[in-house]
Amino acid sequence: MARKDFSFFHTLRVRWAEADMQGVVFNAHYLTFFDVGLTEYLRVLQERAGGDAGLTGDDLYVAHAELDYHASARFDDVLDVGVRVERLGRTSVSFRIEIFRGEEHLISGQLVYVFTGHADGEDPRPMPVPDRFRELVAEFEAVAP
Amino acid sequence: MARKDFSFFHTLRVRWAEADMQGVVFNAHYLTFFDVGLTEYLRVLQERAGGDAGLTGDDLYVAHAELDYHASARFDDVLDVGVRVERLGRTSVSFRIEIFRGEEHLISGQLVYVFTGHADGEDPRPMPVPDRFRELVAEFEAVAP
Amino acid sequence: MARKDFSFFHTLRVRWAEADMQGVVFNAHYLTFFDVGLTEYLRVLQERAGGDAGLTGDDLYVAHAELDYHASARFDDVLDVGVRVERLGRTSVSFRIEIFRGEEHLISGQLVYVFTGHADGEDPRPMPVPDRFRELVAEFEAVAP
Amino acid sequence: MARKDFSFFHTLRVRWAEADMQGVVFNAHYLTFFDVGLTEYLRVLQERAGGDAGLTGDDLYVAHAELDYHASARFDDVLDVGVRVERLGRTSVSFRIEIFRGEEHLISGQLVYVFTGHADGEDPRPMPVPDRFRELVAEFEAVAP
Repeated sequence: MARKDFSFFHTLRVRWAEADMQGVVFNAHYLTFFDVGLTEYLRVLQERAGGDAGLTGDDLYVAHAELDYHASARFDDVLDVGVRVERLGRTSVSFRIEIFRGEEHLISGQLVYVFTGHADGEDPRPMPVPDRFRELVAEFEAVAP
Repeated sequence: MARKDFSFFHTLRVRWAEADMQGVVFNAHYLTFFDVGLTEYLRVLQERAGGDAGLTGDDLYVAHAELDYHASARFDDVLDVGVRVERLGRTSVSFRIEIFRGEEHLISGQLVYVFTGHADGEDPRPMPVPDRFRELVAEFEAVAP
Repeated sequence: MARKDFSFFHTLRVRWAEADMQGVVFNAHYLTFFDVGLTEYLRVLQERAGGDAGLTGDDLYVAHAELDYHASARFDDVLDVGVRVERLGRTSVSFRIEIFRGEEHLISGQLVYVFTGHADGEDPRPMPVPDRFRELVAEFEAVAP
Repeated sequence: MARKDFSFFHTLRVRWAEADMQGVVFNAHYLTFFDVGLTEYLRVLQERAGGDAGLTGDDLYVAHAELDYHASARFDDVLDVGVRVERLGRTSVSFRIEIFRGEEHLISGQLVYVFTGHADGEDPRPMPVPDRFRELVAEFEAVAP
């Protein structure tokens, strides 16, 4: 995917503590950047829904993560984290997340979350993706340029 | 203080992700090392008390931290984190924590924790240090060589 | 110190990964916030100096850090990190750093850095604070409201 | 894969700072655990080779990472990180990494590294995996139970 495929970006600057002895961002920190981008994506959905997107922070668990490292970010780089929903399953949602430095494409990745809930006294288990969330995503991604 | 002043050490190895572009451990990570050392110190107390040291992980809040950086640790260094109780106040406990690489003294520091508790429906507030904990510390530090 | 004592603030939002099981920011992460605030403070000085503030990222080493924890930040909180130079020694500079959530004062702290340099083939050692840096700080802090 | 498929494990204990508000290890930290496990795997190879495994820390760059989260680790859990070479390409090496808590299988993953080098004055580019490294891996994995 390219920059134009994303209607949502979150911008952040690489911290000193995030660059390693090779002078590049340590590989695990990109997953933290994914998480920060995702939080901001969900905030926008939440706001568009008037505060009720049909989900809470507690009922999403990550099931799969994947990253391709094309080029390295460095200390003080300003990065754009693009986020979009790639697929809505019955109980899961797959996010496409890519990181750019200007026009340069550094990282491609995917985060798959499972919705969970629990009846009284039982362990949490997968639950259908809330309809409200499906609608919001459909509306939001439709407005993508 | 010197190595001989500590009766407890926890040993850890510096991770790649913890060294920065200067090739040295990023300053904030030593506080994480302090926390790891403290967890292990409390584990020993807990074990000496047969599992009941009169405290839970939830009721200690850090109030003050202080670090002097004498020399830098590097990736893959094996560090000894010395921990001892320096002072027991009415509602607080002050830990002395120092980090050594072999005989070399890298970091000196202090962590002050406050004991808190809360009555039903009220906010947590400072509570006296449990007597059981005072006794355990007295016994443990007394056996120091 | 209070908000009004700072002429420089950097604003950041607490990440999910930074809050612990008690629901509050883990104590070491505030030192990372200090570092981020300090980076931005130095950027402003650098820009005011037309890009040459007489210092490089490599020649500053932290010698001392101190934190008082008054109240806890939580996930998603927006924090203002106030930074100012508290004291300029011969070879060291002491920064006062405080963290606010709106009007609420969460953290007070201090970071002391030592300027270092090295002649060819020798180990780095303390160097006088560059005059250019002294002037810039004097000008910048003087313009504080 | 199962525990029995690994001839190498590195054991670590989850730190307080690594568990999030859900009480489980934050998803990015498992990649750091992968890195720690990999460092120890390479140390063993290095030692078996009498200190010269034909590689340096600087010439390996991560190209791809993948994680499946089956179950969550919690604060203070003791984890076994299993590491093995899954595939040796011409210029890349793919590691299989899995995390266990006792017999329980928590995380499966993969880290693909590319060997790089550079001629004088040129940018680093992919290089063939050193023969010495191929031999060492072949010998080591062959002795797996």
